[in-house]
Amino acid sequence: MEKPYVVGIDIGGQTAKIGLVDARGNVLTQTAIVSNDTDDYKVFIKNLSDAVKKLVNKEYSMKQVRGIGVGAPNANFYKGTIEGAVNLTFGGQQVIPFAEEMSKLIGLPVKLTNDANAAALGEMTYGVARGMKDFIMITLGTGVGSGIIVNGNLLYGYDANAGELGHVTMVRQNGRLCGCGKTGCLEAYCSATGVARTAREMLETSDRKSILRNIPAENITSKDVFDAAQQGDDLAKEIFEFTGNMLGAALADFVAFSSPEAIVLFGGLTRSGDFIMKPVVESLNKNVMPRWRNKIKVLFSQLKESDAAILGASALAWEV
Amino acid sequence: MEKPYVVGIDIGGQTAKIGLVDARGNVLTQTAIVSNDTDDYKVFIKNLSDAVKKLVNKEYSMKQVRGIGVGAPNANFYKGTIEGAVNLTFGGQQVIPFAEEMSKLIGLPVKLTNDANAAALGEMTYGVARGMKDFIMITLGTGVGSGIIVNGNLLYGYDANAGELGHVTMVRQNGRLCGCGKTGCLEAYCSATGVARTAREMLETSDRKSILRNIPAENITSKDVFDAAQQGDDLAKEIFEFTGNMLGAALADFVAFSSPEAIVLFGGLTRSGDFIMKPVVESLNKNVMPRWRNKIKVLFSQLKESDAAILGASALAWEV
Repeated sequence: MEKPYVVGIDIGGQTAKIGLVDARGNVLTQTAIVSNDTDDYKVFIKNLSDAVKKLVNKEYSMKQVRGIGVGAPNANFYKGTIEGAVNLTFGGQQVIPFAEEMSKLIGLPVKLTNDANAAALGEMTYGVARGMKDFIMITLGTGVGSGIIVNGNLLYGYDANAGELGHVTMVRQNGRLCGCGKTGCLEAYCSATGVARTAREMLETSDRKSILRNIPAENITSKDVFDAAQQGDDLAKEIFEFTGNMLGAALADFVAFSSPEAIVLFGGLTRSGDFIMKPVVESLNKNVMPRWRNKIKVLFSQLKESDAAILGASALAWEV
Repeated sequence: MEKPYVVGIDIGGQTAKIGLVDARGNVLTQTAIVSNDTDDYKVFIKNLSDAVKKLVNKEYSMKQVRGIGVGAPNANFYKGTIEGAVNLTFGGQQVIPFAEEMSKLIGLPVKLTNDANAAALGEMTYGVARGMKDFIMITLGTGVGSGIIVNGNLLYGYDANAGELGHVTMVRQNGRLCGCGKTGCLEAYCSATGVARTAREMLETSDRKSILRNIPAENITSKDVFDAAQQGDDLAKEIFEFTGNMLGAALADFVAFSSPEAIVLFGGLTRSGDFIMKPVVESLNKNVMPRWRNKIKVLFSQLKESDAAILGASALAWEV
């Protein structure tokens, strides 16, 4: 019998990445197409389906493919739709019946979810959370996303939008404005952009020495802060402590909610390693109820970052 | 065929209430035994089992009973144990194999969970959440408890202790000391005792007129605050606003987690009606992500408070 595979697709604002994945989480072959050359979703879905077939048929066969998993912004898992995705040229305010349309074209089941949920599934299927039934995935990138696994399943909630943990309120007075329209959200502090914002604030409000002052304030990135911390810069280290303290306090509240076995951190900020991990773990254990103290594992994702989006989306297809 | 029934048992520090319940949530007959007259759990379980049989056999038959559901402090649903229940004379630090022992004596399946989880099941089985698959139950009594229903099931988490929403941190600086050992917990503010504490604080830190000043500060209860608010007392109304604001802000974070269809409020504080409901709803909608604004139902429990504990526990037995 031929080996079964799945296709994982990660749709972003500029490109859509496509990969053929085996049951062990190896990306056997991959490609990408541009995703911003049309404002007609039917055209995009046709292009995408053609690209999938072309990729698979090159060395493998569509008969081996069990299903297609798609990670996309504003994806609704229950309905298989993309709704109000203003960051996609073919998105806008409309409701796109994505799974249905693509399934028709490609003759396979198509499942959709958002990126952070896909990352959680990927981690459970191929990564550090293999065998776990209760964990929380936190993605620390431009924003802060989350995918919550409860009893082996993604928590979708009533409207399929559960797991917006980047938008719990961490600062209740004079909090930073968040992209979502609220103030004081976790995302406004603990995303990569939040770290850069903290750096600018700390530089502006003190005269302390820091090699970060060699960079124009508006250009500072979380990567710069990491580089500075590695060179022993005290202010840079303090920025990570501030960030980790807040993230750990947030995680303590998440633990009170779903009592996970582990929390898995993923995304750009995790490259800062111990600079972020140490304060996160300390703050989690300081802020959590005594019964959970030192009992919750905090882990970095083990998925290769370049493959993670495809792997996460592909994990959805095994569940078809 | 004879009608099927279940038995619901609510174990408290002083008494254990026992009720026979039908599928519509009618408590057909009930009784209670003292629970603090022995430090030997085997004696207590024997007494309890005898009391169940006596109650049922008076007018019905044990053959009609499908199972026994028990709500108890420190109950572990997965293991059927009561662990470290220091408030029970037969509890202490030990692990009591409650379900196993009682099941042996009574010849029926016995299921255990904590009070707030039982309340959530009761609401889903017989109450205002009938037909709902995603909601959060918040119990506002001496403490603040919670039971979280996700996709039609209680959220237990890795260690069966999920749903400790009374212990998320609402005040991160100089927060009130909570019974759990942390500071700033929701429970320290939005429980009945929290409301009384707020009253004492507000009276002490101002000279404002209030009929609450007619009561010795240390004796003020949340009921007194409600009575004063009903008489038009401005300070009393403000106490409820403060409480409702904080509870609503907490609910907004819970919504970001599990995206429930509704939040059901239960327990003593809900008798304050609109004094608490209005600020809760306003604050929830102010603090929640725009996508959920004015979309989450906030409801008072519809279970009779005198029956609720038995009903909640009994709901567990239908799931056997």
